[in-house]
Amino acid sequence: METNRLEAFSDGVFAIAITLLVLDLRVPVGAEHDLAAALLRRWPNYASYVVSFLVIGIIWVNHHAMFRQIAQADRPLLFMNLLLLLFVAAIPFPTALLAEYIRSGSASHVAAAAYSAVMFLMGVSFNTMWRWVVRDGRLLHAAIDPAQARATVRRFGAGMVVYALLIGVAFVSALLTLALHFLVAVYYVVDQLTVAKA
Amino acid sequence: METNRLEAFSDGVFAIAITLLVLDLRVPVGAEHDLAAALLRRWPNYASYVVSFLVIGIIWVNHHAMFRQIAQADRPLLFMNLLLLLFVAAIPFPTALLAEYIRSGSASHVAAAAYSAVMFLMGVSFNTMWRWVVRDGRLLHAAIDPAQARATVRRFGAGMVVYALLIGVAFVSALLTLALHFLVAVYYVVDQLTVAKA
Amino acid sequence: METNRLEAFSDGVFAIAITLLVLDLRVPVGAEHDLAAALLRRWPNYASYVVSFLVIGIIWVNHHAMFRQIAQADRPLLFMNLLLLLFVAAIPFPTALLAEYIRSGSASHVAAAAYSAVMFLMGVSFNTMWRWVVRDGRLLHAAIDPAQARATVRRFGAGMVVYALLIGVAFVSALLTLALHFLVAVYYVVDQLTVAKA
Amino acid sequence: METNRLEAFSDGVFAIAITLLVLDLRVPVGAEHDLAAALLRRWPNYASYVVSFLVIGIIWVNHHAMFRQIAQADRPLLFMNLLLLLFVAAIPFPTALLAEYIRSGSASHVAAAAYSAVMFLMGVSFNTMWRWVVRDGRLLHAAIDPAQARATVRRFGAGMVVYALLIGVAFVSALLTLALHFLVAVYYVVDQLTVAKA
Repeated sequence: METNRLEAFSDGVFAIAITLLVLDLRVPVGAEHDLAAALLRRWPNYASYVVSFLVIGIIWVNHHAMFRQIAQADRPLLFMNLLLLLFVAAIPFPTALLAEYIRSGSASHVAAAAYSAVMFLMGVSFNTMWRWVVRDGRLLHAAIDPAQARATVRRFGAGMVVYALLIGVAFVSALLTLALHFLVAVYYVVDQLTVAKA
Repeated sequence: METNRLEAFSDGVFAIAITLLVLDLRVPVGAEHDLAAALLRRWPNYASYVVSFLVIGIIWVNHHAMFRQIAQADRPLLFMNLLLLLFVAAIPFPTALLAEYIRSGSASHVAAAAYSAVMFLMGVSFNTMWRWVVRDGRLLHAAIDPAQARATVRRFGAGMVVYALLIGVAFVSALLTLALHFLVAVYYVVDQLTVAKA
Repeated sequence: METNRLEAFSDGVFAIAITLLVLDLRVPVGAEHDLAAALLRRWPNYASYVVSFLVIGIIWVNHHAMFRQIAQADRPLLFMNLLLLLFVAAIPFPTALLAEYIRSGSASHVAAAAYSAVMFLMGVSFNTMWRWVVRDGRLLHAAIDPAQARATVRRFGAGMVVYALLIGVAFVSALLTLALHFLVAVYYVVDQLTVAKA
Repeated sequence: METNRLEAFSDGVFAIAITLLVLDLRVPVGAEHDLAAALLRRWPNYASYVVSFLVIGIIWVNHHAMFRQIAQADRPLLFMNLLLLLFVAAIPFPTALLAEYIRSGSASHVAAAAYSAVMFLMGVSFNTMWRWVVRDGRLLHAAIDPAQARATVRRFGAGMVVYALLIGVAFVSALLTLALHFLVAVYYVVDQLTVAKA
């Protein structure tokens, strides 16, 4: 099966999920007397908007990079991709949750853990997909070296460990968790630059 | 008429409907003291999110598979496709309805029946479309055997009977209805795998 | 300028506007004791969903048909298209308005007039665009007869007169207005079938 | 890297952001007795809808024009594009904010400044991207004259100065700010027409 329409559908879900994040930047109600303060008080909404936008953007870039190496999709790949999209499309929910509760004591830890958990599941889906593709190279473009492709699986696996650790970090500090998600995303920007050259 | 833009438009509707499902995973309000419990109490929202996501995903995969066999679209097909999309785009509504009322006694049966009814109508639209296409083979790609294509109509018709039965099952148990919708979706994953090989 | 990306962008707006209509099929609140009645009471939401879905679907089909005859886009066409999309994207608003007020006496007339007015403005934008294209045939595909293309302008113009009349009909009956919008959409289905053969 | 999928993803975000603007055209509640007045009182929502729709539409047109001159994308360009989309996707938020507070004295200035600031940041992202592309011409199509491309950077830079000034104008009058954003958008329509001929 050709991957064109699969990529187009996935791009649609990525684009919609990333744009729906704006729905959580809600307009403050009844703030006629001090709108500036009301807006500034909502910094967790902006911070989580930026981090989740960056995370979804990075996944899209990596999804793009993965499919440039895939010659054809089989049915299992189609459904693994659907599972990945299930978690990507869900991201606006933990994002809104974290923005709402990041300053609420014990609730902030639960919200941050939920945020990390969705990212972890999303990462696991991505990894499972990539493992399936490089397993025997049958789905890869002829020009791709399967051995080199398999080597990338380990590095992406490292990312999964980080996401798992961030579930734990959530119980230390929700704000720190959000900051580390930002750094992980920035790391994947730089790391992928190297891959692109390879 | 070429089917490219028809497929792109349909993909857009599928991708948006599947992603809008996240809007029903609402953030609990005022749960500062026990967010974990408040989140767990909302399991029907996650369960219905997963089932509807899978159902829309499967329809998309089958829509994809159907159009790979269609060489050109005529006007009636265009409007049958529009009818299919009308039900697909509506799916977030019965999904939210079922999540809201799945634990509400008699209301749970009504919500589950509404959920099954929308799936049934969606299935009927899909089937009507496929019947139109294989009727005389004029719209099929030259390489497709019309007789074999017609044989698939019966099997898909069996799916309609199941959806109709699930309207009845709704009055037994809403939760069972949701679970069976999940199993039907999983069945279509496996069944279609066989078709892909044919 | 090639029309590919213009069509893709327009398809996106059509697909999103048509799918956002579902957001007005709101789940009834606190209807545990009689959900069936609560759902049935909301028939205006379903009726306006179906009519607006059909109208946007028809515009999309006609937009598709128009662009199959356009070889290249100039800047004015780009902005006329943007104006058309402005009204198409707005359709969920008068749809929700009509659903909310269709049973509210004098308010129903205002809501129905607003609904007809948005459809009228959308129709005018579509017509203006088509007139610009056929004006001298420079933007048309070589195989299209400009004289015949110009003849279609009059027929589409008739549609505008109908939409203008429906603003008046709104003050007679909101329900009748919605029913007539449905019939106009169905008429365009049949009419376009003839055009496709030409 | 080819730019096709990058453009498709960007088109998706533009199309969704522009269509989500409709969500702020909320249906008035409890206006059975004077719906016409209730609708007219919401003119700021319609005005900001039109201006933001036009602004996003113009950015899309310019994005389109920019990518017609780009032969290939490198990683930095990918992430600059992501930053641009972050601000484009955010536009429905300051749009709703301005509509809500445009008549609220001192709050109106804050809302208008936020609106101008998002447009300014969006403009800066667009400019940074274009500067990166024309820097050494390596990413440009062979047929594009890098010197001429660089000349356009200055003119687009002028647009940034205007957006920066509009942050200041916000503290004079929110309504004037919105009107000037409309005029800037109209100016870019005309200006780009000239570029298209060059």
